[in-house]
Amino acid sequence: MDANIAYVIDTFFALFAMTLIIFMVPGFAMLEAGLVRTKNVSAVLMVNTMIYAVASLAFLLVGYSVAFGDFGSDSMSKWAAFLFQMAFVGKVINIMSGGVSERAKVLPLGLFTIVMGALIYPIIVNWSWGSDMLKNTILDLNMYDLAGSTVIHSTGGWALLAAILIIGARRGRYPKEGGVRVIPASNIPLVTLGAFLLWIGWFGFNGGSIGSIASKQSADAVALTIMNTNTAGLSGAILVGLYMYFRYHKLDITMVLNGALGGLVAITAGPNLYDIYTPILIGSIGGVLVIFGVSFFDKLKLDDPVGALSVHLLNGIWGTLAVGIFASNGDNITFLGQLKGVVVVGIFAFISSFIVLYVINKLVPLRAEKDEEMQGLDVDECGLEAYPEFKRAF
Amino acid sequence: MDANIAYVIDTFFALFAMTLIIFMVPGFAMLEAGLVRTKNVSAVLMVNTMIYAVASLAFLLVGYSVAFGDFGSDSMSKWAAFLFQMAFVGKVINIMSGGVSERAKVLPLGLFTIVMGALIYPIIVNWSWGSDMLKNTILDLNMYDLAGSTVIHSTGGWALLAAILIIGARRGRYPKEGGVRVIPASNIPLVTLGAFLLWIGWFGFNGGSIGSIASKQSADAVALTIMNTNTAGLSGAILVGLYMYFRYHKLDITMVLNGALGGLVAITAGPNLYDIYTPILIGSIGGVLVIFGVSFFDKLKLDDPVGALSVHLLNGIWGTLAVGIFASNGDNITFLGQLKGVVVVGIFAFISSFIVLYVINKLVPLRAEKDEEMQGLDVDECGLEAYPEFKRAF
Amino acid sequence: MDANIAYVIDTFFALFAMTLIIFMVPGFAMLEAGLVRTKNVSAVLMVNTMIYAVASLAFLLVGYSVAFGDFGSDSMSKWAAFLFQMAFVGKVINIMSGGVSERAKVLPLGLFTIVMGALIYPIIVNWSWGSDMLKNTILDLNMYDLAGSTVIHSTGGWALLAAILIIGARRGRYPKEGGVRVIPASNIPLVTLGAFLLWIGWFGFNGGSIGSIASKQSADAVALTIMNTNTAGLSGAILVGLYMYFRYHKLDITMVLNGALGGLVAITAGPNLYDIYTPILIGSIGGVLVIFGVSFFDKLKLDDPVGALSVHLLNGIWGTLAVGIFASNGDNITFLGQLKGVVVVGIFAFISSFIVLYVINKLVPLRAEKDEEMQGLDVDECGLEAYPEFKRAF
Repeated sequence: MDANIAYVIDTFFALFAMTLIIFMVPGFAMLEAGLVRTKNVSAVLMVNTMIYAVASLAFLLVGYSVAFGDFGSDSMSKWAAFLFQMAFVGKVINIMSGGVSERAKVLPLGLFTIVMGALIYPIIVNWSWGSDMLKNTILDLNMYDLAGSTVIHSTGGWALLAAILIIGARRGRYPKEGGVRVIPASNIPLVTLGAFLLWIGWFGFNGGSIGSIASKQSADAVALTIMNTNTAGLSGAILVGLYMYFRYHKLDITMVLNGALGGLVAITAGPNLYDIYTPILIGSIGGVLVIFGVSFFDKLKLDDPVGALSVHLLNGIWGTLAVGIFASNGDNITFLGQLKGVVVVGIFAFISSFIVLYVINKLVPLRAEKDEEMQGLDVDECGLEAYPEFKRAF
Repeated sequence: MDANIAYVIDTFFALFAMTLIIFMVPGFAMLEAGLVRTKNVSAVLMVNTMIYAVASLAFLLVGYSVAFGDFGSDSMSKWAAFLFQMAFVGKVINIMSGGVSERAKVLPLGLFTIVMGALIYPIIVNWSWGSDMLKNTILDLNMYDLAGSTVIHSTGGWALLAAILIIGARRGRYPKEGGVRVIPASNIPLVTLGAFLLWIGWFGFNGGSIGSIASKQSADAVALTIMNTNTAGLSGAILVGLYMYFRYHKLDITMVLNGALGGLVAITAGPNLYDIYTPILIGSIGGVLVIFGVSFFDKLKLDDPVGALSVHLLNGIWGTLAVGIFASNGDNITFLGQLKGVVVVGIFAFISSFIVLYVINKLVPLRAEKDEEMQGLDVDECGLEAYPEFKRAF
Repeated sequence: MDANIAYVIDTFFALFAMTLIIFMVPGFAMLEAGLVRTKNVSAVLMVNTMIYAVASLAFLLVGYSVAFGDFGSDSMSKWAAFLFQMAFVGKVINIMSGGVSERAKVLPLGLFTIVMGALIYPIIVNWSWGSDMLKNTILDLNMYDLAGSTVIHSTGGWALLAAILIIGARRGRYPKEGGVRVIPASNIPLVTLGAFLLWIGWFGFNGGSIGSIASKQSADAVALTIMNTNTAGLSGAILVGLYMYFRYHKLDITMVLNGALGGLVAITAGPNLYDIYTPILIGSIGGVLVIFGVSFFDKLKLDDPVGALSVHLLNGIWGTLAVGIFASNGDNITFLGQLKGVVVVGIFAFISSFIVLYVINKLVPLRAEKDEEMQGLDVDECGLEAYPEFKRAF
């Protein structure tokens, strides 16, 4: 194909994929706004808005150069290449912020967003998709991670784990008398809307990560990627639905949607590498990890209102290893190579996030004061309520 | 044009169209969640989520082969061709599930979804767009139905009619003393959001059904299709709005939006066949059918909380016949051919759906118990409420 | 590149851009439904739906010919060219209707929509992007306005100013004892969702306005346009966020989102003309204008519930002048040329809107009766409530 035509088509395709990913901004915002209590909804929405704005600007000014050296691309407009990468950044921090919602304050999260968007995430991208500063060192990653099971989802998950260890659980979540107090989601339509916007965004995330659509081969790869991505999401949802039905006779829709998201995270490392049936297995195991992860983390008293540790951290790891199991070709892709990637990125993401959050927490406390938390964060953080005219039932 | 370029562009275009159609998943979910009472919102959202997951998987594992023989396409990636078709399946069942909401349970709807997604709908596709097992038989369909006024919308409508006959009306809807008890929609912003997501999805539905954009002629056909689709939607909305205003001096927005959807259904059989003014007439008549359909079905005590019989069944029939009236070329497209298609598909869709639902209903009752229905389906079906913190006015 | 391929790609691209713009229909609807009080939500949604339907049809039947002479395009399908332009029309009126919400009635707004969609807006498009009836006259516009900082946003803003002068403020907004009564937004998640749908729509608005993507040069221009559009939005949000934090220690999310929208309006005249850093400045100033505009217009007792005068009118002017400052090339683009465009369009838009609204107001009063306004417009205008089951806190 004529190089000019390929350049045009791939630019267009990258812009299309980028646009789908940007739908994940309202996607995460609606999902989280629906999962938290009404008194924290505005703060959660403010955090989501802040993340998109601050992380993207940090990536524009600093992060992109850290990851890729400079603006440039032969095969498509360099601005489209930038936009596609920029669309990813906020997601890493969304994963983290969702899990500390209902108690973390906007300003320290903003400071963390700057460091994550300008340095931590770009360094991980540098190693995996970028100019690769680890080349020819012992740490060189040979991990295959098409669209970021590890680079995006585990990274966000490790940052979240660090944050939860520093900030602790919501007051009242783990009562002294033992057990876990259930804190119900406040708005199920928003949860559902958010989950489906994320799902659609994933088509751009994974499909666009093929990097080109401008040849028969790459068009097939893009289409297969989107197909397998979707199948893994379906399978995660169905597995969790069946479990919920046979175990409890209750189809808890927040769990079913998290099952879908778990499947989507799990497929993300290699959706282009499988036949069309393997994603059913990978996504189903993703659903299983969500089911057991949610109670596992509660047992450890790691309080995560949106289930992000299960959806993103566990499934990010699982998805990366799954490539080593189902798509290993004994040469470039090996199980050990995948495992090494998981471990190296995990150690770096966790430790660097922990240090940065620890320092920020000393300067500007991450956690809301007790009164503020009980009252809900909206009033102190945003000066308004999310639903001021609706009378509260409790 | 170089065949490779056409392959790439058509793959990309099919993926674009597919993505728009997937926006109809949250579209239907929000529309229905807004139209039902708050006590049934989570169950409705669970049904919508289940339909997308189960119908798509059934179509992947069985239905697509029933319809088309095997995975394959010369002119674009076979995976993109699959994804585009897969995006349609759930819609047929959404049409049906919306109309039985507030009383039908998730599990039996799930069983019906499997049969519809694996067999009933694929058989109808086989006859109309697929490998055509009726070829050279007396039943061979010569119906022109670009994007499914009959194949999708009437089929869903017939299945809904079968379901309503089996399941009956919501308790209290038709009081013994006569008349119809109005049960107001609980969340008008969700209804509006859902309707517009459906409207946007229709651009992909109808535009993508041209099957290619990679020539001047097909690019014109796609653009005309989307233009006419939009015009019919506008006209349906305006007609209903004018009627509402002059008849009642009240612009009931749920009726106006249903008018738009009725117009969109009506244009779906042949948006590429008309000049740019005919859709105004077709869509307006679509609006009229919504207005009179809603009270007509209430007179028959066919209780349909979302107006799906009027929007999808009546307008699916009207749209298919409209092709025979306005686009008849005396040869391939005739009014009688269109009518035959409506009748053959209608008989098959109604009878097969009735039998399957009848059998399912014997095994797993479709209908919620009285207590469950009065309490709302959310608690028993999902174990949660959609808006637990909002105090109910009644 | 082969002309056929360019025709196909540009048609596809225009349809893609148009689709993104149509997401602004639910975008404006959700933004405004979230910003007004619950008792006016259905009326606002009805107005938004009406505008899309009526303005688009008026443009199809009359307006497009006024602007461009006839249906036609060499470089892409004429239907795609129409659809892209049609997607713009409603936006001008959305800007105006949002600012008079909670007191303006649907029917007179509908009459104004017809005139604006058929005549006023098309005449302005004729001068700026169309067949240019002012050519070789003293009024000939040499303004550069890629995607409508003036043509769309200021025009809508001037129409709004005319409407506010005629209709006045909401009862109780400016109490006799002085000051401004704060009327809080009723649904913050809807505001956020709406703002992000608008943001995404802007990619299509501005990117599509390049008019072609089918060469290396135009692909670069499109990508740079979308990148700069996004950067200006980010910058507007961050600037307002910082101001809110340092001034009030409260991150009022409605102001932050309006800051983003202000930045987006400001960049719209020339997103393709700047390097990648200038939009940070242009968007930040956009944010400043939102901050000071909101209190400025309140001082003048120009009551605008959604902040549209600041977001669209001030920033529309600023963005058009910014092209003259930052992209002036001394020849075709000059500061004076930009200023002349702002003034000529402004005078025409304001005066023509004022006259039309004045006449309509004599025939069908724009303003709801006092009782209707106090009760909320939903009951009288739509015959229903937006959230009937939710108990009001006040």
